[in-house]
Amino acid sequence: MDSLANGQTKQTDIGKPTNPMVSALLCDMYQFTMAYAYWKADKHLNRAVFDLLHRKNPFRGEYTIFAGLEECIRFAANFHFEQYEIDYLRTIMPSTCEDAFFQYLQSVDCSDVEIYAIPEGSVVFPRVPLIRVEGPVLVAQLLETAFLNLVNYASLVATNAARHRQVAGSEKTLMEFGLRRAQGPDGGMSASKYCYLGGFDATSNVDAGQRFGIPVRGTHSHAFVSSFMGLEEIADRCLQYSSGKRTCNDFVSLTQQWLSKLQAVPSFRGLFSETNQSELAAFISYAISLPTRFQALVDTFDVLRSGIPNFCAVALALSELGYNALGIRLDSGDLAYLSKQTRKFFRTVEKEFAVEGFGQLVITASNDINEETLDALNKQGHEIDAFGIGTHLVTCSTQPALGCVYKLVEINKQPRMKLSQDIEKVTIPCKKEAYRLYGVEGYALVDIMKGEAEPPPKAEERLLCRHPFSESRRAHVVPQRVEKLYKCFWAGNSGVPREPLPSLAEAKARCKEQLEAMRPDHLRSLNPTPYKVSVTAKLYDFIHFLWLSEAPVGELR
Amino acid sequence: MDSLANGQTKQTDIGKPTNPMVSALLCDMYQFTMAYAYWKADKHLNRAVFDLLHRKNPFRGEYTIFAGLEECIRFAANFHFEQYEIDYLRTIMPSTCEDAFFQYLQSVDCSDVEIYAIPEGSVVFPRVPLIRVEGPVLVAQLLETAFLNLVNYASLVATNAARHRQVAGSEKTLMEFGLRRAQGPDGGMSASKYCYLGGFDATSNVDAGQRFGIPVRGTHSHAFVSSFMGLEEIADRCLQYSSGKRTCNDFVSLTQQWLSKLQAVPSFRGLFSETNQSELAAFISYAISLPTRFQALVDTFDVLRSGIPNFCAVALALSELGYNALGIRLDSGDLAYLSKQTRKFFRTVEKEFAVEGFGQLVITASNDINEETLDALNKQGHEIDAFGIGTHLVTCSTQPALGCVYKLVEINKQPRMKLSQDIEKVTIPCKKEAYRLYGVEGYALVDIMKGEAEPPPKAEERLLCRHPFSESRRAHVVPQRVEKLYKCFWAGNSGVPREPLPSLAEAKARCKEQLEAMRPDHLRSLNPTPYKVSVTAKLYDFIHFLWLSEAPVGELR
Repeated sequence: MDSLANGQTKQTDIGKPTNPMVSALLCDMYQFTMAYAYWKADKHLNRAVFDLLHRKNPFRGEYTIFAGLEECIRFAANFHFEQYEIDYLRTIMPSTCEDAFFQYLQSVDCSDVEIYAIPEGSVVFPRVPLIRVEGPVLVAQLLETAFLNLVNYASLVATNAARHRQVAGSEKTLMEFGLRRAQGPDGGMSASKYCYLGGFDATSNVDAGQRFGIPVRGTHSHAFVSSFMGLEEIADRCLQYSSGKRTCNDFVSLTQQWLSKLQAVPSFRGLFSETNQSELAAFISYAISLPTRFQALVDTFDVLRSGIPNFCAVALALSELGYNALGIRLDSGDLAYLSKQTRKFFRTVEKEFAVEGFGQLVITASNDINEETLDALNKQGHEIDAFGIGTHLVTCSTQPALGCVYKLVEINKQPRMKLSQDIEKVTIPCKKEAYRLYGVEGYALVDIMKGEAEPPPKAEERLLCRHPFSESRRAHVVPQRVEKLYKCFWAGNSGVPREPLPSLAEAKARCKEQLEAMRPDHLRSLNPTPYKVSVTAKLYDFIHFLWLSEAPVGELR
Repeated sequence: MDSLANGQTKQTDIGKPTNPMVSALLCDMYQFTMAYAYWKADKHLNRAVFDLLHRKNPFRGEYTIFAGLEECIRFAANFHFEQYEIDYLRTIMPSTCEDAFFQYLQSVDCSDVEIYAIPEGSVVFPRVPLIRVEGPVLVAQLLETAFLNLVNYASLVATNAARHRQVAGSEKTLMEFGLRRAQGPDGGMSASKYCYLGGFDATSNVDAGQRFGIPVRGTHSHAFVSSFMGLEEIADRCLQYSSGKRTCNDFVSLTQQWLSKLQAVPSFRGLFSETNQSELAAFISYAISLPTRFQALVDTFDVLRSGIPNFCAVALALSELGYNALGIRLDSGDLAYLSKQTRKFFRTVEKEFAVEGFGQLVITASNDINEETLDALNKQGHEIDAFGIGTHLVTCSTQPALGCVYKLVEINKQPRMKLSQDIEKVTIPCKKEAYRLYGVEGYALVDIMKGEAEPPPKAEERLLCRHPFSESRRAHVVPQRVEKLYKCFWAGNSGVPREPLPSLAEAKARCKEQLEAMRPDHLRSLNPTPYKVSVTAKLYDFIHFLWLSEAPVGELR
């Protein structure tokens, strides 16, 4: 990276991309054919402005969490072609391509590029560009696919995580368990990183824990239970007391004694009479190994007749030695019912045996959970404290792609506008600035875009906000506070002061703050209120002037 | 890798994982807590057999393409812990964990592991394990998440690609365009690789082309068209003839002449009267740059009134210089209608101007295409030769996850069986062999599993095939040919002869062959016939003996 920093503001906080898969070939082929055509037409240094934006919020919602920016900036900072990459490009480009082009590619980097963006973790809305890339058209165009790739899934899954958090409520523990269902190792890494950003507390993914400092969680699987035949397998039955001063020489018998006591509790009689011995062996063995972290998966055989009594027996034995068990995990069945029954048992145990805190042991659930399941559980009532969420979270199964696009909006100071018969696909031309206007209650009211040369909106000044395409939709706003949305995150050698890249923890904190600054009706799952995105009167007039002059007669209505 | 090969059969064809993101920490946390518990209970060297299998075919279909095996084998071959990884594990495991465990982890590798699998690219079915891992329970358990991660998405997207190929037909060109919508760079790489395996011809992803030798394709984007203002921008108007012996000094005027000629064709009159000049400039510039690869995106303004006549004018001018244009790409609108109109124009041009082959120029379509769109286009009739498919293909939007599981089926020669009230979730115990039986017409009839000790099925010998769980479903089969499904792909230091890893091209060829050996009714989209998976009579009896002995009374019905 430093070799690229010819004269530019020193960017010491930007290292390599976190993903070593990332190379400058992370491109669609057409970017190279276009690069050649730009170069051949001597247009390659034309100064272009590209907007990266989304046109629609995902999951039938009315907001999106912006994520992936840090990776984009690292990509830009390290952007250059290795010799082997250029050698490869020669083989896929037509033999008519001039050698000087490939020599030119060797010198291409992002030192003449500036990147402005909304900070990572922000709540964002369709049409307001998330990233603005300014630079020579050839290199700015080459960034297209990598930026889309790095932003699309990151923002999608962060939004999905935020939505799960909204439904689950702030007091629940949410854990991402999706590594095995993600699109390969890096898909899993992105999922863990951006679910954490969007509001999750932890991940099962150890590698993501190591790379990003995300807390990791996990207990054991059904296979662990199945690997035991019976109690006779437990060779070493000793367990030291928590105090470290004494040792229990037969933790197996101690547990069996507690199981008998449980079976004698009047309200449990009959229910707890026949627990699975291989499951009990597995629980005991796990507890002897990890007495400070005892959490059991209780549904290998039968949750209420075997898993829960076996767990309680081991937890009570641990308690006698001074250890607090963590709780249980449910991975199948009727989670609402099972969690309520389990809580009832835990409370009875607490009362019967006077073990403080037993009634509040953590109940974790983890079977095919999604936003709808969380909502249904809330409606039914449940006693689950923590959720492990995998498949639906990381694959974003209700909408597995976010459709960010990368559009040319200006070249050599000339505004460019992509017309379309589909109004959603029309892009807003020019290099723009964007602001968020806040009202008296501290909530965000509206986002507004303006042309570069216009003065910025000011707090407590009346401002006309217009829908970009609809003549009749307009409103006057007097903001209490005005937030400028774009900051410079990559300055190249322009000398523009540059923001440091926020840490993952900072982006996560920003996401939380920004969600708190949204009116709750914009965030709700069912029929959320659309948040308004507007343009200034001047930009409105300019868009429509350009539209009329660009559109062939009769083509657009 | 070589440093791990302490005495084992030399495996020179297995290098590093293709994805450098892959480390031994690619694990869910519970694998480490279990590893510690196995070690602490002195069970860690117990010889375990794990089956990796899926329970349901994706996309409401009746088949799955197995992919991801090569990556699993590379993962196993390179499996070991680096010091920094062990240091990290110490920080996330409880402080009560013994130091000797972490020392032991330093010695863990796959030299005592054997991996048997169905070859990559095979057509596979639920319940028949795709991979069988045999080894010490600690290390075999540690492979779980990585193997699931590497197989789940690979197999899902390969199956999706195969289904798209089935619907599109063998003569169409299918290109994967999904990089920007995949789960990060590696998600995109996996998508490109496994779509190629499943039957696609090419990708837009240049990096995947470089890494895997997949043909890459691409033209230009709307931004390229938008970057031009008009013909005056084209500074260098010269273009050499294809022969290399002459130069046309004003290719712009030549194109304009052809545009006038087109406008004069009686059947085009009126239609072709007002084409967009910036679009024309972009097309001419592209053609001057890449005359042997001229393919134009024709929908920036209006396909039939601007894009097609502009393309035809440039293509005719190129033709005069001895170059054959490739064709056009449609990225919006009614693809069936537009392709048919375009074909009509192309044929008229061929006839009017006697340009041989013009009627057959390639029409590519690329807007939000999926299996259903392809089917609908077939029903409507269309003239599209090539499809660029992105979002729906790579995100597998109709079912974004395959639910492979990794189940313990034997430990220390003791069969293990995961019971469940959901019959689909019951696993078939024991170390098994599996065979595919073929009938007289060469089609696959049924897959059959047997216990390790039973004799293998033989061609032309009558064999009873039983449904694994349903008493009444059974059939006698006399196979013409018997195929043993498992081969050893990783032998550790066992000395078992090992299959070399097939190349991507070989796996792709296998996929094609295997699909051709399936009866077409198993492959069709609508109401496909389920393919039968069976067990031998002896295995059936054993499963049910075990089931009765393991299940608590009254628990299972």
